Amino acid sequence: MASSLLKRTSYSAMKLVAGALAIGGSSRAYAAIAAGTDIVSAAPNVSLQKARSWDEGVSSKFSATPVKDIFKARFLYPYFDKKVVIFGLPGAYTGVCSQQHVPSYKNNIDKFKAKGIDSVICVAVNDPYVLNGWAEKLQAKDAIEFYGDFDGGFHKALDLDKDLSVALLGPRSHRWSAYVVDGKVKAFNLEEAPSDFKVSGADVILGQI
Amino acid sequence: MASSLLKRTSYSAMKLVAGALAIGGSSRAYAAIAAGTDIVSAAPNVSLQKARSWDEGVSSKFSATPVKDIFKARFLYPYFDKKVVIFGLPGAYTGVCSQQHVPSYKNNIDKFKAKGIDSVICVAVNDPYVLNGWAEKLQAKDAIEFYGDFDGGFHKALDLDKDLSVALLGPRSHRWSAYVVDGKVKAFNLEEAPSDFKVSGADVILGQI
Repeated sequence: MASSLLKRTSYSAMKLVAGALAIGGSSRAYAAIAAGTDIVSAAPNVSLQKARSWDEGVSSKFSATPVKDIFKARFLYPYFDKKVVIFGLPGAYTGVCSQQHVPSYKNNIDKFKAKGIDSVICVAVNDPYVLNGWAEKLQAKDAIEFYGDFDGGFHKALDLDKDLSVALLGPRSHRWSAYVVDGKVKAFNLEEAPSDFKVSGADVILGQI
Repeated sequence: MASSLLKRTSYSAMKLVAGALAIGGSSRAYAAIAAGTDIVSAAPNVSLQKARSWDEGVSSKFSATPVKDIFKARFLYPYFDKKVVIFGLPGAYTGVCSQQHVPSYKNNIDKFKAKGIDSVICVAVNDPYVLNGWAEKLQAKDAIEFYGDFDGGFHKALDLDKDLSVALLGPRSHRWSAYVVDGKVKAFNLEEAPSDFKVSGADVILGQI
């Protein structure tokens, strides 16, 4: 039952997204990120917003985290490599993201830790309070770090932004994953359509680490 | 403890919003809506998106609801008046909205029904799936109808849009409430700052019906 629902959801969404691409004509096969890209240089002066409650947001004076601080080791570099796995998705409270994408990383967190990954990060074009509410609902906050990209600046810099107004979402992002060592992209996976879930899950990137 | 936290939140947010206004210089004392305005004419060709789960969104083919259908009686008009109370707020999962604004309407729903109000509606510049998740968390879906304004089109038409990037929210809305009979605004209340909660609560508008 759940499985058939999921298939139907994915198929319908794919058809709609395919329709949007045909209308907009803005489909891009490649983004501004690939194996070898320095993600910090590709997104200079860009910050993300750590998921938190509104009260925590106020207490932190609505602070943001520079991309550099997320991907680069702060001390003992180059003797200590910071290893990050990051995945991006179209939005909190949407179908594939809630039912497949986040769970695939959450349920494999021990395998990432065993391979020496320092951080597993989920990023989405949402504000940090919505993202926090969603992460709590998915009971994923202990395993995964969540960062909002509320103005889409990070995804725009990487050419991973995507208009999903057809699904009542507005400007969002593609679905993707990357393995990044001290800011350098070692592996990058991009779904053809945001409703796809073929290459951006935990199983694929675990094989690339 | 909760009370002092709330005061601190409200005061800090107010300072930040006041700062944003001083920088942006875009403070407006009046919106394009007031007592006497026909809200359907003021927002022509605008739709809102009923809060729902992603799967319900797919099943509904991502349909939206024209503003006319929300405010105008569909049959027996003019012998049957459709009476709507609507309130707008800066965003799901933010402080005053979660802790005061929605609860003030939820907890007074019987008084609205006793006064013959057909719908009590909450609208916010969020997508309908996020709004649904928040409404469920607040256990407010039985009492209140929630509508997303994912692209801000409704609030822009009414001149109630507001940039809240200073609080990591992006383009959102003022905090407001209105009593609307068959599309005609009978009472309108607008907070000076989105962090204020002085005139847009249930108690004020109950006295205006």
